[in-house]
Amino acid sequence: MKNAITELKAKGKAANEASLRLAYLSTDIKNKALQNIASDLRVKTKIILAANKLDLQQASANGINETMQDRLLLNEARLEGMAKDVLVIAGLPDPVGEVFDMRTMPNDLLIGRKRVPLGVIGAMYESRPNVTIDISALCLKSGNAVILRGGKEAFNSNQALAKLVQAAALKAGVPAGAVQFVENTDHSLVNEMLKLNEYIDLMIPRGGEPFVKFVIKNAAMPVVAGGIGVCHTYVDRTADIEKAVAIVYNAKVQKPSVCNALDTILVHKDVAESYLPKAATALAKAGVELRCDKPSIAILKSKRGLKLRAAVAADWGKEFLALIAAIKVVASLDEALTHIAQYGSGHSEAIITEDYSSGMRFLNEVDAACVYINASTRFTDGSQFGLGAEVGISTQKMHARGPLGLKELTSYKWIIFGNGQVRP
Amino acid sequence: MKNAITELKAKGKAANEASLRLAYLSTDIKNKALQNIASDLRVKTKIILAANKLDLQQASANGINETMQDRLLLNEARLEGMAKDVLVIAGLPDPVGEVFDMRTMPNDLLIGRKRVPLGVIGAMYESRPNVTIDISALCLKSGNAVILRGGKEAFNSNQALAKLVQAAALKAGVPAGAVQFVENTDHSLVNEMLKLNEYIDLMIPRGGEPFVKFVIKNAAMPVVAGGIGVCHTYVDRTADIEKAVAIVYNAKVQKPSVCNALDTILVHKDVAESYLPKAATALAKAGVELRCDKPSIAILKSKRGLKLRAAVAADWGKEFLALIAAIKVVASLDEALTHIAQYGSGHSEAIITEDYSSGMRFLNEVDAACVYINASTRFTDGSQFGLGAEVGISTQKMHARGPLGLKELTSYKWIIFGNGQVRP
Repeated sequence: MKNAITELKAKGKAANEASLRLAYLSTDIKNKALQNIASDLRVKTKIILAANKLDLQQASANGINETMQDRLLLNEARLEGMAKDVLVIAGLPDPVGEVFDMRTMPNDLLIGRKRVPLGVIGAMYESRPNVTIDISALCLKSGNAVILRGGKEAFNSNQALAKLVQAAALKAGVPAGAVQFVENTDHSLVNEMLKLNEYIDLMIPRGGEPFVKFVIKNAAMPVVAGGIGVCHTYVDRTADIEKAVAIVYNAKVQKPSVCNALDTILVHKDVAESYLPKAATALAKAGVELRCDKPSIAILKSKRGLKLRAAVAADWGKEFLALIAAIKVVASLDEALTHIAQYGSGHSEAIITEDYSSGMRFLNEVDAACVYINASTRFTDGSQFGLGAEVGISTQKMHARGPLGLKELTSYKWIIFGNGQVRP
Repeated sequence: MKNAITELKAKGKAANEASLRLAYLSTDIKNKALQNIASDLRVKTKIILAANKLDLQQASANGINETMQDRLLLNEARLEGMAKDVLVIAGLPDPVGEVFDMRTMPNDLLIGRKRVPLGVIGAMYESRPNVTIDISALCLKSGNAVILRGGKEAFNSNQALAKLVQAAALKAGVPAGAVQFVENTDHSLVNEMLKLNEYIDLMIPRGGEPFVKFVIKNAAMPVVAGGIGVCHTYVDRTADIEKAVAIVYNAKVQKPSVCNALDTILVHKDVAESYLPKAATALAKAGVELRCDKPSIAILKSKRGLKLRAAVAADWGKEFLALIAAIKVVASLDEALTHIAQYGSGHSEAIITEDYSSGMRFLNEVDAACVYINASTRFTDGSQFGLGAEVGISTQKMHARGPLGLKELTSYKWIIFGNGQVRP
């Protein structure tokens, strides 16, 4: 363990040193690194898939369930998808070096802000090995060094991918040390990594709520936390019922295991009778269990083929991450807003309405990273928002909120051009 | 103490509740509040000065030194200055509600970001009572509630000013609770305030380095820290010597007690002999003590009227906050950059040069909040940078860097206008 800590610190120091040069590396070199990564993902498939096979065998031997095994799985199609994603990032504008707010002051000082990388990003993530590539590519393009610490189950895959990234980056002229991979997957090393604020400027934890909360509590460096989404969709009195059925269905069913999936349906009492039976029928076809308050149970109980349960207090504000939705009938937009303020996690919230003022009130008054009128909360995503990709989704207000793309991995410095000015 | 904690929590809750309405209060009402504050500062001078007199009497009785007493002092001229500063903030554009990055996606979703307040700002500060007005005005204009906790020495002044702000804001239509003042100045209450992440979104500590470090270490909420400035001015081989003398003199002498004042002069060996005697003579007239490395002592030792001392290791990277400067002769721009990277605090750094490439290298490679070519580091200031005012100067990279004005007290949310879109 002592050796592992020494090694970790050495990696931190190396990343920090590399970050100083990375900060003003040309866009051409960074893009070349990404192109090399993409091309190696297409060429070195055998090495990667052999490493992945070791992880899959281990997972199978450990009796890990199929869903988890699928998250671990790499194949040629998935590697090709990863290569394409990297090329998308290569095609995005480089945020580093952008100069903004430039102005000449009355004393002739020329003052502005210039975008710079954050420095060294720490990334702790779980089983999906593509995260190794995604985060490396976003960090390289944004001029940040990165220290990767993936989950134990995907160790061999992550190690092979990290080596590929390191070689591809080095070949392009990226300083050695820019991409660090932590080989020791002991949980105790997480604690050590969280202490390395001397070298790591920002920690990005990706995983379940207990892990993210642990990192927030224990990290000595800033953390961008998020990924916990208790998402409501409020069906307003004036909602277009067909749209409301389709949007709620999509928000709940299209990918229930993710943070931007719907958890609670709030429905205005005036449309509950017309809306809920249609919505429930659609959701039932996908096997969604409904946890209903008393008024919604009263409306739905006579319908056949539904998985109904009476909602309990713990169902409000719960992130289900499964084919389960809570339903509550509300008397007004105000009651919906109050419910969301109390139970939402500040991730993604939606209103379905044809009333202009209700929509605008919802947009203004809901305090969340992403607020929707008449669309599925499933759109909360870096690619869908036009950022190309994301390292995570922030539910905090400091620094950046919502999907974190390239620009969100940067800071700025003030640059001042003088000709001898002194302060009077 | 238990009562004080209960009261503090009640203030936190009240501020939090007020912040929900403040977030979308009209610019007109916020500006009216600031105009009321300015006008009351001009009208209610007697009440304020009477409260200030109590603090001054207490300070005098406690044998507090004159510099500190001067920091405490209010008079009609200073109140008028505060009123004018508040009106400047009233005249600045409202950052809240600004919509940016708006775009229509291929699926016709209209997606953008809308600027919103952070919520509740906690401010802990020391003896200057004008901070009560500055921070209140900046928070109100940026739609944030604020919890003020000033130093014990200025208690009566701060309390009177806070009451003035509360009444002026209320009269304008700002929700009650927007400005909270902590009446208990026990140090143990600082610890309690640092735990209130349930209600306080951002803590701004203003004070000496030990206090700021204490807050960073113990705060449960995000902290914008800064105000610690170890500032270098590097006189390059090609520097215009007259400019270099004037700029260094200004950076050191114009206000030595502040964070953007010069601490260390780095000078290229080729100009050390021509530059240092002139600079030292000028600085000596203002009573500046010079802590010199061996080469600079060798150059200066024969000059009369200088306060020279041999520099010790602890002088490099020291924030003097006094009429003291360290001097080091360097062999190259590279050595200067290395010295600054090692000893700078990331606040303000300057190069004096007539060489284009040296200037641009310095600007690109120095990692600090503010990097200058041919100007005094004393310009690092919200007003001087055109932000109107500042709540502090950040030396961190997350969220905001350098002077923190209105925009830096905001976050954003993503707003998405749909017409039934679902994710494929």
